[in-house]
Amino acid sequence: MTGLTYKSTGVDPTRAQDALSQVRARIAKSKRPEVIGDVGAFGGLFASPGSDMVLVATTDGVGTKLDLARMLDRHEVVGTDLVHHCVNDAMAMGAEPLFFLDYFSTSRIDPAIFTRVVGAMADACAAHNCALLGGETAEMPGTYGVGAYDLAGFLVGAVRRDRILDPKNVREGDVCIGLPSNGLHTNGYTLARASIARAAAAQGKDMLAVLGAPRMDLGGGSLGEALLQPHTSYLDAFRALRDAAQVRSIAHLTGGGWEGNLPRALPEGLGAAIDRSTWQVPPLFGALAELGRVPDEEQWDVWNMGIGLVAIVPESGADAAVRAVPAAAVIGRVERARPNERRIQFS
Amino acid sequence: MTGLTYKSTGVDPTRAQDALSQVRARIAKSKRPEVIGDVGAFGGLFASPGSDMVLVATTDGVGTKLDLARMLDRHEVVGTDLVHHCVNDAMAMGAEPLFFLDYFSTSRIDPAIFTRVVGAMADACAAHNCALLGGETAEMPGTYGVGAYDLAGFLVGAVRRDRILDPKNVREGDVCIGLPSNGLHTNGYTLARASIARAAAAQGKDMLAVLGAPRMDLGGGSLGEALLQPHTSYLDAFRALRDAAQVRSIAHLTGGGWEGNLPRALPEGLGAAIDRSTWQVPPLFGALAELGRVPDEEQWDVWNMGIGLVAIVPESGADAAVRAVPAAAVIGRVERARPNERRIQFS
Repeated sequence: MTGLTYKSTGVDPTRAQDALSQVRARIAKSKRPEVIGDVGAFGGLFASPGSDMVLVATTDGVGTKLDLARMLDRHEVVGTDLVHHCVNDAMAMGAEPLFFLDYFSTSRIDPAIFTRVVGAMADACAAHNCALLGGETAEMPGTYGVGAYDLAGFLVGAVRRDRILDPKNVREGDVCIGLPSNGLHTNGYTLARASIARAAAAQGKDMLAVLGAPRMDLGGGSLGEALLQPHTSYLDAFRALRDAAQVRSIAHLTGGGWEGNLPRALPEGLGAAIDRSTWQVPPLFGALAELGRVPDEEQWDVWNMGIGLVAIVPESGADAAVRAVPAAAVIGRVERARPNERRIQFS
Repeated sequence: MTGLTYKSTGVDPTRAQDALSQVRARIAKSKRPEVIGDVGAFGGLFASPGSDMVLVATTDGVGTKLDLARMLDRHEVVGTDLVHHCVNDAMAMGAEPLFFLDYFSTSRIDPAIFTRVVGAMADACAAHNCALLGGETAEMPGTYGVGAYDLAGFLVGAVRRDRILDPKNVREGDVCIGLPSNGLHTNGYTLARASIARAAAAQGKDMLAVLGAPRMDLGGGSLGEALLQPHTSYLDAFRALRDAAQVRSIAHLTGGGWEGNLPRALPEGLGAAIDRSTWQVPPLFGALAELGRVPDEEQWDVWNMGIGLVAIVPESGADAAVRAVPAAAVIGRVERARPNERRIQFS
């Protein structure tokens, strides 16, 4: 009987090192002047902003969009998603990104896939002037099925203390500015996949066939392509809005859809009246809803329905805001919440 | 055919909210004066330390210790582990902890287990004066088996710029001070479990029987108990060392064991001569090695072998360091690395 080694149990720490060395150059491009030292220390070092600043920390995952990315061999997307999701969340408090760390956990590291995922993260970080400051890679045979992996991202940004976005500043009569999403972003994929699986079963096809088929309602594109658009980053749009108008608060429409997120940007006692006729819900949502016969309210409670971010501005600033960001539109208004009813009312 | 809802697919966003509300009071105890606002915003707010400080960011997981914790219903341990692991990593750069965020991912949230894990994290954060500033909870049916979950932790600490621990300051002749571990901490569990599984198979028992059996060599305790000791936090010991002597650098002995970690605290060209006779390797390691017939070098490359942290101090400070921390011992010395040999040499 030979002795056990770590390698014989399926764990090989050198695999993570080798894979990491392939993306080191791309990680280096995300470096900012505040970064001290190199990757490889026990912790990443970043010169603190001054004490007039407030740090904003956020953590996110990609959810079961990971399964679709694997199924369709589109691993870059989830790396990009993770960074954009975190950037948007920190931005919803008014912050610009400073640095990012990732957690990559799998049964056995596949260097080709690791490189694609983490390389995309590094590129997204560099594009946002956000240092990829560190990460952890774990091999956990038994926890994950063959080829499966999970990702978590962690981002720290900073905002000047007097520029923190605080829902308490929102007033009745303020205006909701909607910014378009390009799909589900990173939320509601379990429902989307279940809808597709149900349709596939009903049609006697496999899921890949349904995902890959060109569709009239998607302009000849496939569900797979539409579902693997990367999570939109709203940082540039936010900067333009902030320069053009007073932004009072921001809701990033992620898990929990409208009712789960828009109230987080409002003070207690206030809600919002959203006029659905002010934008066109992208056909992807209608297609998914039809495949899964998803009730209307459920769609709006799970998916973003074509609006990924809502900024609240005073009425006097609405025109300037919409002019500053051509894709933006006035989609509703802040009003008193109705007792015992949902805070977001649609018309 | 009824319509699909998120709940019908196994995801229920209210479950995470309900579970979180049960630990809110414990999370509140970790609050520091720098924390602004409450949990629930898109990002956690923390007043920045001054620009004379450097932020230290680190991310860690618990690895397959999670499987043992589940098997033996000891979920609190992994929550504590995650915080202590991160605290030690930031401390290895000289930092005191500021705030922590967690990522909890599972197939379906079990509120009882979530509460035990995240509650233990909150308690560990409070004990280290570290704010539990936020977290993400993901339900990913399909990615994780029933009952399985994964955890990632993110910690930001701070150190004064002139007190950063930098391996470049280490000199030939410096002394290695070892601090005892209380077991495997959070690394090398896949090898430990494989060793136990092999023994169980050879004895015709199931793994739980081997894990639970009282053992003479463990003083009547079981392997299960010994393997589920929480990762030691070295923050108090570090503070005492730092007050008593000049600490030049620190190695936290985690994944990769001795050769994988101690060189990270040394400049290029230097290695360390470690005298194994200066401490007693705890019997747990011998028991695991015997069960899996793990070769000697492999043990030292995977496990900490009874020393969880090594601090490098100048020779002139060694006596004071050891007096300041009663559990500490001089275990070796920094010396020139030998070309084409391992940087850590044992005698």
